[in-house]
Amino acid sequence: MDKKKNISMAVIKRLPKYHRYLAELMKNDVDRISSKELSEKIGFTASQIRQDLNCFGDFGQQGYGYNIKELYNEISIILGLTREYKTVIVGAGNIGQALANYTRFEKLGFSLEGIFDINPKLIGLKIRDIEVKDIDYLEQFLKKNHIDIGVICVQSKNAQKVCDILVKNNVKGIWNFAPVDLVVSEDITVENVHLSDSLITLSCLLNERNN
Amino acid sequence: MDKKKNISMAVIKRLPKYHRYLAELMKNDVDRISSKELSEKIGFTASQIRQDLNCFGDFGQQGYGYNIKELYNEISIILGLTREYKTVIVGAGNIGQALANYTRFEKLGFSLEGIFDINPKLIGLKIRDIEVKDIDYLEQFLKKNHIDIGVICVQSKNAQKVCDILVKNNVKGIWNFAPVDLVVSEDITVENVHLSDSLITLSCLLNERNN
Repeated sequence: MDKKKNISMAVIKRLPKYHRYLAELMKNDVDRISSKELSEKIGFTASQIRQDLNCFGDFGQQGYGYNIKELYNEISIILGLTREYKTVIVGAGNIGQALANYTRFEKLGFSLEGIFDINPKLIGLKIRDIEVKDIDYLEQFLKKNHIDIGVICVQSKNAQKVCDILVKNNVKGIWNFAPVDLVVSEDITVENVHLSDSLITLSCLLNERNN
Repeated sequence: MDKKKNISMAVIKRLPKYHRYLAELMKNDVDRISSKELSEKIGFTASQIRQDLNCFGDFGQQGYGYNIKELYNEISIILGLTREYKTVIVGAGNIGQALANYTRFEKLGFSLEGIFDINPKLIGLKIRDIEVKDIDYLEQFLKKNHIDIGVICVQSKNAQKVCDILVKNNVKGIWNFAPVDLVVSEDITVENVHLSDSLITLSCLLNERNN
């Protein structure tokens, strides 16, 4: 397991894709795959794949390819998917509700422990048996319950404030959907999903092609 | 405008962030900003900023900084945000509905023309005055209405099929939320939002720090 300390951010960003493809291969009862075959499926070059997978162990056997189940399990460990993560969603608007309803996350090991909002119209609403609570109770809730990941789905102007409350109460991971860049100390991990930025990137690429 | 052909993908990915920060500065009535000040706000180095912004014109004036409005307008042009994009959402589940309700996209110039689903329980539902239509009508709709961007929010197993229908009917941009990698011809632009991959990246980084 020592090898994993050396895995670069670029490799980490590619790992979920490997995980997804290996899961599909397992579902289709495939046992082994060569880097060349995997390359055709996943779209990375075979040499890139060999290099990536070498980062965390000796899996490929020359001429025999990768043992898919072994590789899948090892990648799951590296991705931290062999344990459970407790999450809260702050902001029960459109995106917050959609994420709360998305059962796929639960299957991956992310359990939803609480949903909070500032809007009286949303407080009390039940989403998958979890009642939306007043954001005023967030701090109290975090003090009582250990939460690993806070999902921020509030408006931009409130996002940093919410982030500060989460971090102050020992939440180490932030999944941020607000279109702002949060300021956090170095021991906090932030992963952004900036939907508008993504849509704008698409329009930019479309526009470039048409000119 | 000739310069823009040379803008790299890395710069394009950074442009929405510039756009967002410049919009905020304009809102706060700031006229000019130096690359150093912008760097402190945006988190890129001053030299990175100068290099990025040099890609598409001569904006900075030594000692005077950037004219924010001019720069904002130019970046808007490059990002293709000075025109309207007509979009359809295919898949009116959690994420599809959330995106349909997200008025910020409309403000950026992305107008929602239609929503489609396969689920009889969702067909007929009204989201912001747009009725969810049976996916069987998608092709017919696309033949009658020019659509720039198709937003795919269907289940993985149906995503490629939906993508093929969109592309066949002249949709050039795909914003894909299904956790699959779509196969398209070279003239089609796909921008993925793989939420599970993003969450898994977060768990991986969290897990790395705790070990």
